Amino acid sequence: MNHFYAMILAGGGGTRLWPLSRTQNPKQTLALTEERTLFRIAVDRLSALFPPERIFVVSGPRLMPTLRGDAMHIPNDNFVVEPYARDNAAAVALGLAAITARDPDATVALLTADHHIASTEKFLSVLRAAHEVAQDGHIVTLGITPTYPSTGFGYIHRGALLREQNGLPIYRSQGFKEKPTHEVALQFLADGSYSWNSGMFIWHVRKAMQEFERQQPEMYHLLQELRQAFADTRDDVVLGRVWEKMPRKSIDYAIMEGATDVAVIPVDIGWSDVGSWASLYEVLKLDDKGNGVRGNADTLLIDTTQTLIFSEKLTVAIGLDGVVIVDTPDALLVCHRDKAQEIKKVVEHLKTTGQTDYL
Amino acid sequence: MNHFYAMILAGGGGTRLWPLSRTQNPKQTLALTEERTLFRIAVDRLSALFPPERIFVVSGPRLMPTLRGDAMHIPNDNFVVEPYARDNAAAVALGLAAITARDPDATVALLTADHHIASTEKFLSVLRAAHEVAQDGHIVTLGITPTYPSTGFGYIHRGALLREQNGLPIYRSQGFKEKPTHEVALQFLADGSYSWNSGMFIWHVRKAMQEFERQQPEMYHLLQELRQAFADTRDDVVLGRVWEKMPRKSIDYAIMEGATDVAVIPVDIGWSDVGSWASLYEVLKLDDKGNGVRGNADTLLIDTTQTLIFSEKLTVAIGLDGVVIVDTPDALLVCHRDKAQEIKKVVEHLKTTGQTDYL
Repeated sequence: MNHFYAMILAGGGGTRLWPLSRTQNPKQTLALTEERTLFRIAVDRLSALFPPERIFVVSGPRLMPTLRGDAMHIPNDNFVVEPYARDNAAAVALGLAAITARDPDATVALLTADHHIASTEKFLSVLRAAHEVAQDGHIVTLGITPTYPSTGFGYIHRGALLREQNGLPIYRSQGFKEKPTHEVALQFLADGSYSWNSGMFIWHVRKAMQEFERQQPEMYHLLQELRQAFADTRDDVVLGRVWEKMPRKSIDYAIMEGATDVAVIPVDIGWSDVGSWASLYEVLKLDDKGNGVRGNADTLLIDTTQTLIFSEKLTVAIGLDGVVIVDTPDALLVCHRDKAQEIKKVVEHLKTTGQTDYL
Repeated sequence: MNHFYAMILAGGGGTRLWPLSRTQNPKQTLALTEERTLFRIAVDRLSALFPPERIFVVSGPRLMPTLRGDAMHIPNDNFVVEPYARDNAAAVALGLAAITARDPDATVALLTADHHIASTEKFLSVLRAAHEVAQDGHIVTLGITPTYPSTGFGYIHRGALLREQNGLPIYRSQGFKEKPTHEVALQFLADGSYSWNSGMFIWHVRKAMQEFERQQPEMYHLLQELRQAFADTRDDVVLGRVWEKMPRKSIDYAIMEGATDVAVIPVDIGWSDVGSWASLYEVLKLDDKGNGVRGNADTLLIDTTQTLIFSEKLTVAIGLDGVVIVDTPDALLVCHRDKAQEIKKVVEHLKTTGQTDYL
């Protein structure tokens, strides 16, 4: 697998873990689950399969110094800078340009930087199998077996068995479904043939180029210009000129939904998007009372259960159950875990009232 | 009432409102109930009855600058400094020495600096009546009508009616009772003739001197030396020399429990010792959902009721009921109000583990 590359998309930044995650410090840069950041964990879990020179990281200029500092063993040239955000189809094109300039026979695993995966071993087995399946022109998506009727994820509908690979069943995809209503999500869950779209997929660059050329010819030509720029002098002026012509599209919309030969591997790898304090709680190491403490704080917990504390200073919790406490220098959140989804209202409020310093 | 003086005992410092109240910033120096500190409120509520020159403040050297700065209209000489803490009988003796040096015909109301009194008008009426009753040699205590079987206060057992004064019934005291067990407290409450000892009482300095001379002759002689020092040059050397001989006793134990002619006025003035976060909550101005917010924080409360927030930074509460959130630069408390009494365990823990910076 000397031509197998990982492309970690590490741009973007949500605020669903506000007040810890901010525009300047998005989720992937935070040490949420343990001492390492989610980004560093995403890098480290690849180490048994990808040497550092075959790991590429795509992100914006603002985060780049942080990401480089967090994974100094990855060569500098493998950090590919989006001049500014133009949605993730452009980011994928940029990463593909950089990788194909290096290796025209690459197979690329598109991976995320801010998700939790409990079982690295299973995950790498899946990548190995996907690499094989991608050799004959398939786009191999990783479909997460749903555990509840989520309305927050897109779904992949699996069809007939394509083949087995390394003991794993590989299915044809019957298509992507956008985030469903609760009712539809219940049907998907009951049906059993729908997986969450993890955003992770594996393809050979030839297949990638074919799909861009067929579905997004404009982006395809820009991608070729970018590839040439990477092959030549990695000229920032060229990059900037090309970049501003890039359409803003999501990779799902631009490529995946219309792609041919999409396969799906249903995976059960302990995946979480860590998309809320409630879902972070689910993957944290807890003490015998179900409490999770992160940050450098001294804590004192009395009559307190199932409570999550992120703090850098002495924090005392008394008589709490199921509460999330997140202390930062300029903002404090105390939230019942069942209401963690209300964070988006807070962020919305801060936006509409112009309190963007907090975001 | 030109010879009526207020002596505010403003020393001491509890940590029952930790982490806001600290050794260096005890309760009386905090703006707990509104923008003014409890000390300043204690001073201001006297203004209709006592001109500033007849208000004396007794406290230690560490707090004195804060207290002076907080009540600049009170003459400097009226701030009487305890060289160091020697319990409150010594503090009372010191204050009496300063006042009698000024006015040998003084009647003195001993008052607290860190309690809440909802009705200033009733309180002043009681003081006026007590002043009259004190003229014939009574020690007039203010007894708070109990609202629950508290085991945290001492009690005064009232006896026969002594007289009426300004429309208020004045009773003879049948004696002081130390903090009772819960069972005994229930009996006191049912009996109806027991009041909480508020620590506030009014006496003429002649009566005060008689009681010190009879019950605490050693303190009495030291008090006379102090009085002379105040009358002369207010000599700090004399003060220091006398002070170190002062026995450490509480005023209740040293004087009140053995005193003759003790009277009690049962009062219903909306009194609270603000002795815990739960009792502070009871006296705070709340919004229509029962939430109380203090400090300079912006707050955002979603699905949150009966919650108390002390914070100087943006604080978001979601899905909470009956919680106390207290944020300070070096320590954060999140506590269910029903468990507020557990704070003493926290303070104990910090003491035993040597983390005294937090106290």
